[in-house]
Amino acid sequence: MNTLPKSWILLAIFFAAISKSYGQDALPSWNDGPAKQAIVEFVKATTTVGSPQFVAPEERIATFDQDGTLWVEHPMYSQVMFCLERVPAVVAEKPELKNIEPFKTVLSGDREAIAKLPKDELMKILAATLTGMSTEQFQAEVNAWIDTAEHPRWKKPYTALTYLPMQEVLEYLRANGFKTYIVTGGGQDFVRVYSEKVYGIPPEQVVGTAGGTKYQYDKNGNPILIKEPKLLLNDNNAGKPEGIHLMIGRRPVAAFGNSTGDQQMLEYTNAGDGARLSMILLHDDPVREYAYGPAEGLPKTRVGTFTQPLFDKANKDGWTVISIKNDWKRIFAFEE
Amino acid sequence: MNTLPKSWILLAIFFAAISKSYGQDALPSWNDGPAKQAIVEFVKATTTVGSPQFVAPEERIATFDQDGTLWVEHPMYSQVMFCLERVPAVVAEKPELKNIEPFKTVLSGDREAIAKLPKDELMKILAATLTGMSTEQFQAEVNAWIDTAEHPRWKKPYTALTYLPMQEVLEYLRANGFKTYIVTGGGQDFVRVYSEKVYGIPPEQVVGTAGGTKYQYDKNGNPILIKEPKLLLNDNNAGKPEGIHLMIGRRPVAAFGNSTGDQQMLEYTNAGDGARLSMILLHDDPVREYAYGPAEGLPKTRVGTFTQPLFDKANKDGWTVISIKNDWKRIFAFEE
Repeated sequence: MNTLPKSWILLAIFFAAISKSYGQDALPSWNDGPAKQAIVEFVKATTTVGSPQFVAPEERIATFDQDGTLWVEHPMYSQVMFCLERVPAVVAEKPELKNIEPFKTVLSGDREAIAKLPKDELMKILAATLTGMSTEQFQAEVNAWIDTAEHPRWKKPYTALTYLPMQEVLEYLRANGFKTYIVTGGGQDFVRVYSEKVYGIPPEQVVGTAGGTKYQYDKNGNPILIKEPKLLLNDNNAGKPEGIHLMIGRRPVAAFGNSTGDQQMLEYTNAGDGARLSMILLHDDPVREYAYGPAEGLPKTRVGTFTQPLFDKANKDGWTVISIKNDWKRIFAFEE
Repeated sequence: MNTLPKSWILLAIFFAAISKSYGQDALPSWNDGPAKQAIVEFVKATTTVGSPQFVAPEERIATFDQDGTLWVEHPMYSQVMFCLERVPAVVAEKPELKNIEPFKTVLSGDREAIAKLPKDELMKILAATLTGMSTEQFQAEVNAWIDTAEHPRWKKPYTALTYLPMQEVLEYLRANGFKTYIVTGGGQDFVRVYSEKVYGIPPEQVVGTAGGTKYQYDKNGNPILIKEPKLLLNDNNAGKPEGIHLMIGRRPVAAFGNSTGDQQMLEYTNAGDGARLSMILLHDDPVREYAYGPAEGLPKTRVGTFTQPLFDKANKDGWTVISIKNDWKRIFAFEE
């Protein structure tokens, strides 16, 4: 009879775990409204046994864009910041680059000039800072950067600038048997370094823009993989569903994005049978975060292009628009 | 108090589940010997809390070659059989191919002539039967084939010709928190169709030779992905660790193969820190299965090249060779 208390403790833990996912409000940072309601109803419809829209656990795939959907993308993608900040180290190793463009401009620190660098010049920076080293060296470099880099506005690490309401959606979906994936236009190897720590998403569930690697041996004869400037997957636009097929092999039932680069992922997800959740995030809060896209008529930026046609398509196809201003009670975990 | 019996039932289920993975012999189809011992000791070392070689659950990645490692690869890879058997359907749609090589030879049914087709002619067959259709059409075709095709020797479906001892290893590793992956030179899209049913491995855990897809719309405006004859990943030799990095992003701690195509995956796995398990399967049982490679001095075949240098490397680097003849009590589930 003395095992009875232990068994009761186990059961208590068991029921506590259940009530965590069902009993409380799983989305406390969301205001009541159509966006929150769409998420909760989708989860209920797809996970209730006997529901006509029930989705088998192994088919519960949810995909999330990262920049502008899971964390702040303004004024510049974090990965571009990483690349720019790596330039001094690259030039220290190859001093001949010092007086050559675009490295010269980046070293000058002139923010306006850097922001105006044409795309093919920017690609030279990316190639120089993202390739040519072993995958392990690269991981160490990203890790060191992510631990120290700060966002210029909030003076906080980028990893603190994830959207709390989206973290709640990730948790809520996982508690209901969904496998959550990041599907990002950013570098797959870059995001994989911190995805587990920041979002609870393991590296193998990160799909992103990916380059090739070359298997070879270091001077001690140990096998290493060297990152090559060879594009295998441009994980933007049509590349998102193509990347999802390559890396996951199933069509998602839920997808979240915030720009034209996510359009095909959202429509591919939405075109499947049964219950579907396609959500698109509108940055319409100039005070607490940023406002860009059709809601404010801001000038086009390099990041997060949410155009009027995309807005129209979202409404026409029955995607749900998330308004940061109206749907989010709280944006960041560090806020009161 | 009337909830008490229910709680006892739950606990009984709980302890039954535990004893399944720890109490019994998890590898009953294996003879006692160095191969079985290597597997059991590896699992104990990597999963016992406090062990100096303990591996965190999220790092427990095990990769398995498919053809010749998880199921029979002689006399011909199953995927090549699929492609050859698809030729009549392809020619029915494009009758102009009927009198053109290599289609003419395949339609003749002359096995010897087919076996002699040079590699670039064979590639034309693969391109014609593996690309040009939507991913969903292709899945339906593979599904229909796998349900009806038979191996010429055993007159059984290919799916019955998986090695029972390897199925036990998959189960045993999963019961101990490992994530099991197939890493195959075969087509990723092909193997993903049946991997869950046959091995309990979901499509997203199959890495294989992969072609590109093109996102487009069908005549009703629905988005589809068309399989293109564009190679993204040749998942053989150095392509195996490169594919593992692309698709998983972590170095495996255990790997299983049977040919020179698996060498780099095995050495990459083995070169990591801590406990490592690299195993290579030797087909040395001409009676119960097949014998090929250095053990029998058989002529080189198109499949499963286990050369003497590979054998020497395995011994030198401390990989464990599995002898089908000596290590496996039983090969197939359908045997007595």
